[in-house]
Amino acid sequence: MVRGRICGLSVRDVRFPTSLGGHGSDAMHTDPNYSAAYVILETDAGDGLKGYGITFTLGRGTEVVVCAVNALAHHVLSKDLRDIVGDFRGFYRQLTSDGQLRWIGPEKGAVHLATAAVLNAVWDLWAKQEGKDPRTLLSCIDFRYITDVLTEEEAFEILQKGQVGKKEREEQMLMHGYPAYTTSCAWLGYSDDTLKQLCTEALKDGWTRFKVKVGADLQDDIRRCRLIRDMIGPEKILMMDANQRWDVPEAVEWMSKLAEFKPLWIEEPTSPDDILGHATISKALVPLGIGVATGEQCHNRVIFKQLLQVKALQFLQIDSCRLGSVNENLSVLLMAKKFEIPVCPHAGGVGLCELVQHLIIFDFISVSASLKNRMCEYVDHLHEHFRYPVIIKKASYMPPKDAGYSTEMKTDSVQKHQYPDGDVWKKLLAAQGN
Amino acid sequence: MVRGRICGLSVRDVRFPTSLGGHGSDAMHTDPNYSAAYVILETDAGDGLKGYGITFTLGRGTEVVVCAVNALAHHVLSKDLRDIVGDFRGFYRQLTSDGQLRWIGPEKGAVHLATAAVLNAVWDLWAKQEGKDPRTLLSCIDFRYITDVLTEEEAFEILQKGQVGKKEREEQMLMHGYPAYTTSCAWLGYSDDTLKQLCTEALKDGWTRFKVKVGADLQDDIRRCRLIRDMIGPEKILMMDANQRWDVPEAVEWMSKLAEFKPLWIEEPTSPDDILGHATISKALVPLGIGVATGEQCHNRVIFKQLLQVKALQFLQIDSCRLGSVNENLSVLLMAKKFEIPVCPHAGGVGLCELVQHLIIFDFISVSASLKNRMCEYVDHLHEHFRYPVIIKKASYMPPKDAGYSTEMKTDSVQKHQYPDGDVWKKLLAAQGN
Repeated sequence: MVRGRICGLSVRDVRFPTSLGGHGSDAMHTDPNYSAAYVILETDAGDGLKGYGITFTLGRGTEVVVCAVNALAHHVLSKDLRDIVGDFRGFYRQLTSDGQLRWIGPEKGAVHLATAAVLNAVWDLWAKQEGKDPRTLLSCIDFRYITDVLTEEEAFEILQKGQVGKKEREEQMLMHGYPAYTTSCAWLGYSDDTLKQLCTEALKDGWTRFKVKVGADLQDDIRRCRLIRDMIGPEKILMMDANQRWDVPEAVEWMSKLAEFKPLWIEEPTSPDDILGHATISKALVPLGIGVATGEQCHNRVIFKQLLQVKALQFLQIDSCRLGSVNENLSVLLMAKKFEIPVCPHAGGVGLCELVQHLIIFDFISVSASLKNRMCEYVDHLHEHFRYPVIIKKASYMPPKDAGYSTEMKTDSVQKHQYPDGDVWKKLLAAQGN
Repeated sequence: MVRGRICGLSVRDVRFPTSLGGHGSDAMHTDPNYSAAYVILETDAGDGLKGYGITFTLGRGTEVVVCAVNALAHHVLSKDLRDIVGDFRGFYRQLTSDGQLRWIGPEKGAVHLATAAVLNAVWDLWAKQEGKDPRTLLSCIDFRYITDVLTEEEAFEILQKGQVGKKEREEQMLMHGYPAYTTSCAWLGYSDDTLKQLCTEALKDGWTRFKVKVGADLQDDIRRCRLIRDMIGPEKILMMDANQRWDVPEAVEWMSKLAEFKPLWIEEPTSPDDILGHATISKALVPLGIGVATGEQCHNRVIFKQLLQVKALQFLQIDSCRLGSVNENLSVLLMAKKFEIPVCPHAGGVGLCELVQHLIIFDFISVSASLKNRMCEYVDHLHEHFRYPVIIKKASYMPPKDAGYSTEMKTDSVQKHQYPDGDVWKKLLAAQGN
């Protein structure tokens, strides 16, 4: 039973100084401090349940997203949760189409990240209260701007078909989990020695799919890719990630030189806005056995729609915190199914693994019904700050069993890492001041 | 001579309560309060010159852009202006590719609007100090992500060709100005009586090109368009603007029903992110004599590149405050020239006319060398708050004669309209509280 009026919304700027160890570094983001704008919703229901929502950021700029969350707060406060989820499509549109605020988006940038954080909290709260059927899920999707490729009726048919064999797939997930790949071994800022050591450990832990960051220097890339391919052998899967470093012709040229290392995909070869550019790159690289993957910085369903329309990608990477929460991610999962493109979510960051596991396991059970060419990113850090961290067994995500969206952080972690006044930052900033 | 170290950056949230009169209302923005994040740069040069920069907003959310400007400030403060403009491309990239901050863009949303405000201030300051030649201009452009359609050498050739006949075009501008059209007569929130009255006045003032807002209700649109077409007669030019209200099939259907009123273009028929959608709409409407125009919410050069690549528009509408200042606008003017698509800038808002007149007159004198199918939007409000307001004569923009980017607002206007503590807002907010 849905219950309660939203009587409190708080948002905090939580940052982890990951740049100190080179974790998360790539060709475009050399010193990220993995961070989050962290939203907590409270209700007057008296049941003690809260809704926790995050969106992921890289450090500087988190305060801008926090500011954007506060700009959205008036749409949420004093609302009855029943009214919100009873017309979730309408509520989604209220947030994304606020007649003044949409100018600073629309549906992109800081305000869309803030929308994700707020709605992730709503989903967390709602999920703790009750289950959802296909019609309810569809009623959460804003089909504006995508009806030319997916209507509500088509979406319903996909979900109806997804009911067949659902029980077996649920059991399969409970038994074996959802296959994952690791990005933790080969950040661009790691030395070759660190890379070797981490690779050895990952192989020992049963990992069979590895991603390496590339794009800053070709000779470095060749050396690092050779090193990893030699370590993992010819059978295991290798992916590459350029984090938008290249122009279109450059991407094709560069990847032609890395083709010998047999990457399954090249991720983010160029601007996330360049739909036609990705199509050109795909066309050139698919004959070399290399697919194109993108999505972690694709800002909304309209961009994904077009990437699918022009066959610009072979692997689609949703992000639980950049798209407008479950609502918009559902629309992308359904479009991907229609175009028969496998979804391989972006994860890592702060809490992205915790959130996206729900989406991708749902995708397998109720939408795609397939594991072919599918896997979910995994990065082995910052999980200790979450109250319900992901569980990885034999390189697979085991389905979460607690109600909610796994978004709650530990109170102590939040306090210590709050920027700039948590203990961790007070010390670091004082040290920088010296 | 370029001189001075940036020793101060301040930013203010300035809002005008335009929603009270229905000014600026359209199918998606029913109650805009035209606003600006207003940046002032000071140097230690001792010459009294300051750089003023704005970006336009619609009210709520301005505080988010202000926050984003502050997040960029450390890139600007203590920099020598010579170093900034001496490697303006590098400086542009420093702002747009900050390894942490770019996550909340990249090059879109609040952080890109903030980039525009900051860089507009740099251009204002620089323009007060010295002139620029073609090579200098090119050195300001970040060609990243657009080299597949425009290289620096091609851009140089375009500017070289633009030297031919330049003197004559300058004289033509000084004599006759740049042709404008008016949007002031037909906001969606105006009654038919207001519309008639404003149209009568505009005709009397010599206006020959008119834009009407459409998209909320078809029968209303038919009535309003008929009314305007009857008033202005068959020869004068009428444009329509849907402000992103429609899905792709809906846009085609709706406009087919308004074709009888002979619009030159339909502006923003659908999502500003939907490149392929605009192409589909163009293909359907061009045979009916209706072009597609878009751009005021196209967030960067990568989107414009693709709109040009797939012939998605017949009129390209740059925005002086959404793209990354003059730097990014230059790249779009040059691409438009290469594809032979006329640029008809978006203006109005707060200060957009003041800024964009510089860009479009430059486009005519040095890039396009043509007025065919070209005109610049004009909206008749809020100019009184600027120290160097635009001058309109016979429905044309007369070239600005003061040095700088015409971005400076009157101190008194800023103080009164600062949100939420300026006098205007203190009164309004107190009244709302009662």
